[in-house]
Amino acid sequence: MPPSFQRAGKFLSDHGLDGFLLLGDSLCNLDLYYLSRFLAPDRFALLAASSLSILVSGMEEGRAKKESSADEVVSTSDYGIMEKLAKFERPEEAYAAVLKEFLRDRGVKRLGVSGDFPVRFYLDLVSDFEISVLESPVGEMREVKTPAEIEAIRYSQRACEDAMMVAIEMIRKSRPSGETLVLEGGPLTSERVKSAIEVSLLERGCEAEDTIVAGGIDAVDPHCNGSGPLPSNSPIVIDIFPRSKKSRYFADMTRTVLRGEADEEIVEIYQAVLAAQVAGIAAVRAGATGKEVHAKVCQVFEERGYPEREGRGFIHSTGHGVGLEVHERPSLSEVGKTLRESNVVTVEPGLYYPELGGVRLEDLVVVKEGGCENLTSLEKRLIL
Amino acid sequence: MPPSFQRAGKFLSDHGLDGFLLLGDSLCNLDLYYLSRFLAPDRFALLAASSLSILVSGMEEGRAKKESSADEVVSTSDYGIMEKLAKFERPEEAYAAVLKEFLRDRGVKRLGVSGDFPVRFYLDLVSDFEISVLESPVGEMREVKTPAEIEAIRYSQRACEDAMMVAIEMIRKSRPSGETLVLEGGPLTSERVKSAIEVSLLERGCEAEDTIVAGGIDAVDPHCNGSGPLPSNSPIVIDIFPRSKKSRYFADMTRTVLRGEADEEIVEIYQAVLAAQVAGIAAVRAGATGKEVHAKVCQVFEERGYPEREGRGFIHSTGHGVGLEVHERPSLSEVGKTLRESNVVTVEPGLYYPELGGVRLEDLVVVKEGGCENLTSLEKRLIL
Repeated sequence: MPPSFQRAGKFLSDHGLDGFLLLGDSLCNLDLYYLSRFLAPDRFALLAASSLSILVSGMEEGRAKKESSADEVVSTSDYGIMEKLAKFERPEEAYAAVLKEFLRDRGVKRLGVSGDFPVRFYLDLVSDFEISVLESPVGEMREVKTPAEIEAIRYSQRACEDAMMVAIEMIRKSRPSGETLVLEGGPLTSERVKSAIEVSLLERGCEAEDTIVAGGIDAVDPHCNGSGPLPSNSPIVIDIFPRSKKSRYFADMTRTVLRGEADEEIVEIYQAVLAAQVAGIAAVRAGATGKEVHAKVCQVFEERGYPEREGRGFIHSTGHGVGLEVHERPSLSEVGKTLRESNVVTVEPGLYYPELGGVRLEDLVVVKEGGCENLTSLEKRLIL
Repeated sequence: MPPSFQRAGKFLSDHGLDGFLLLGDSLCNLDLYYLSRFLAPDRFALLAASSLSILVSGMEEGRAKKESSADEVVSTSDYGIMEKLAKFERPEEAYAAVLKEFLRDRGVKRLGVSGDFPVRFYLDLVSDFEISVLESPVGEMREVKTPAEIEAIRYSQRACEDAMMVAIEMIRKSRPSGETLVLEGGPLTSERVKSAIEVSLLERGCEAEDTIVAGGIDAVDPHCNGSGPLPSNSPIVIDIFPRSKKSRYFADMTRTVLRGEADEEIVEIYQAVLAAQVAGIAAVRAGATGKEVHAKVCQVFEERGYPEREGRGFIHSTGHGVGLEVHERPSLSEVGKTLRESNVVTVEPGLYYPELGGVRLEDLVVVKEGGCENLTSLEKRLIL
C-alpha cells in the first residue's frame, strides 16, 4: 500500500513550501514509514516535494531501492559522507552538511518540518533555508485509512482475537484454589498467559510490545501489565495490542473475564461497562465528534450510578485511533474532533475501583457514514 | 539497574544549566529510558537536575511511581492538562503550557536539551527559558556499561546463541536438492528459519525486530533480510540481534554457513573473514581507538587480496556498540574514537561479491584493560 504525498501537494502550495522534510528512523517515526514504506532502524531523510526523495546511508541504498515507495533513492555516500566525517569534529555536523547539499540539489529554499523534527538539525538548516515548523500533514493523512490499511488492521485484529481466545481458554480451564487460579498443577500466572498470547501472535506474524493480563488490584491501574498468580473470583483484564511485523499495522482489543464466583457488584459493574460500550459504538459515525461519543459513554455511567470521582470509576477516555501506532488520532475524549469515514478507533470504556477491581471492554471499529463496522467479533462474557 | 544522573552533575555545572530536559516516549528515546527506567509508549518528560523528576499523564502516574527510578513523579493532571486542552486550540500548546509550569516549579531558568529534542517545544520554551542545545551527556554515560548492563547483554547474547543453534541445526539437517535446500519434504526458506529463530528467542523473553537469513545474492546486501528458498552450495548469512523484552538490552551475532559443496574461492573468502575477525578482536582493548581496530581488519583483507573497491569486498565498518540500541556508540570504523573499559562492541568483518555471495562473522565483546572478553562462544564453521 504505497500512499502518495500527492494528497498533500495542496499543503505545500498553501504554505508556500518547496518541500517538507522528515528525518529519523522509520521504526519510531511512523510518518516517515507511512510516506516511504521503508522500514529502517537507522536514521534517514525523506523530502516530500513534487516527488518523494529519500537519503539513506550507502549500506541501505540497495534495500531502499528495492523496498521503498520513494521516487528517488540517494545515499549519503553520493554526498561524500566519509570525507565530511573526516573533516568535521562531530558526525552530526557532517550529516548536516550532507542534508544541506541534498536539499539544495532539489531546489529547496522554503522548507517545512514537523514539530518533532530534531532541534539540532533545525538550527543547522535555519541559517540556509527558510523553515516553517508546521503540524505534519501526514498525521491527518494517516487518520483516514485506505482500504489496504483497513485490511492490514483487520489481519492484525484477527491475530489479536485468536490470541485472546487462547488466553481466555487458559483461564477457563484453570481451577480456583483459594484466592488464586491453578492450571496443570501450577499457579496460573499473568506471565504464563502473556507467554501463550505472544506465541499465538508470533504464529500469525504479529508481535506485542506489551500485553496486559491483570487481575485484582493490578487491574485497577489501566496501564499495569499484571504479574504473578491470577486471582479467582475477581475480574481479569486482558488487553492485547499487537502489530503485524510485516504490515506494521496494529490492532487493539480488551476483554475482562472472571473464573470462580462473582460478587453481584462486579456483575453490575460489568453490565454498566457493556452498556456504555454499546452506547459508545452506537454513537460512532462519520460526522459525529469524538467528544460526543465520549459523552454518550459517560452518560451511561452517570445514569447507572458510576460517575467519575477523584480518580475512581471511568478514569480514561473512551477511545483512540489505531494504525501504525497503537495510540493515534482521532481521539474519543473530551477533546475529540469530528470523525471521518475510514477512521479506525477503539471504543473502550472501563470502571476501576481499588476495593473491587477493574473492568474494561474494547472493540476496534471502522467509522462509516451513518455508523461503524466492528472489526471485533469475539463474544463478551464475564464469568467463565 | 537504576543508573544515576549524578555522574552528569558535573555536566550541568560545566554548562551552567539548572537542568537537562528529555521529552519523548521511552520505547524510542532510549536516553529517556536509561535515566528513568520507565518504559512507556506515550510521551513523557524527564528533568534531570539535582534530582530526577518525571512528568507523565494521569493514566501513567501509578505505574510510573511503581516502576521508574525517578525521585519524583508528577502528572500532567496536577498541572491542569484537561483545562488547558479546553483552553488551547491544539493539544501541543496545552502540553507546552504544562511543561513551562513544570520547569518553573523546579526553579529552572537555564535549560539544556539534546539535539533530538522536538523543535516544536524548543520554540515554545525558548521564549521563557535560556536553552542550550547540547550533545546529550546520556549518550556518553550509555557507552560505558555497568556490571548489571553487561549481565543483561550477556543474557540476550545467550538467547541469541540458542536461536542461532536452532537455525544452524535446521540448515544442517536440510538436503541440497538442485540449487536449493529441502527440509522435511518442503523447501527450506529464509522465512522458515527466521520463524524458528523467533520462537526460540520468545521462549527466552527476547524479541527481534528483524532477523537476517540470507543466501545467494541476498547475502551480498548486508542489510537484506533474505526471503524464499535458501540456496545449496552457497553461503547463508544468519545475523540475529534480539532484545530482551524485560531488560531492553540487545545482543548481536552473525554466522555464515553453507550446506552442500563449497567453491574453493568461498572457502578462501571465509578464511579471510575469520582471520580479519581474529585480528580485530585481538586489537580491541581499552585505550585503542575504534579506528585502529578497523584498520587491523582492513589490513588483513588487503594482505589476503580482498581490498575494498567500488562497493565490492569489505563494504561496511568493523563494528558498533550494543546496548539499549542495537547500533550505538562507540564505533569501530574510520571515525572510531578511543575505546573505554566496559564498552560493549561487535566485531563483524564481512566480504561481499555479487557473483559469489556474502560472508560475515560477528561476535560481541566487552572491552577490558589489555584486551576484551568475548560474550560469544558459538563455534565458527562454514560447511555443515
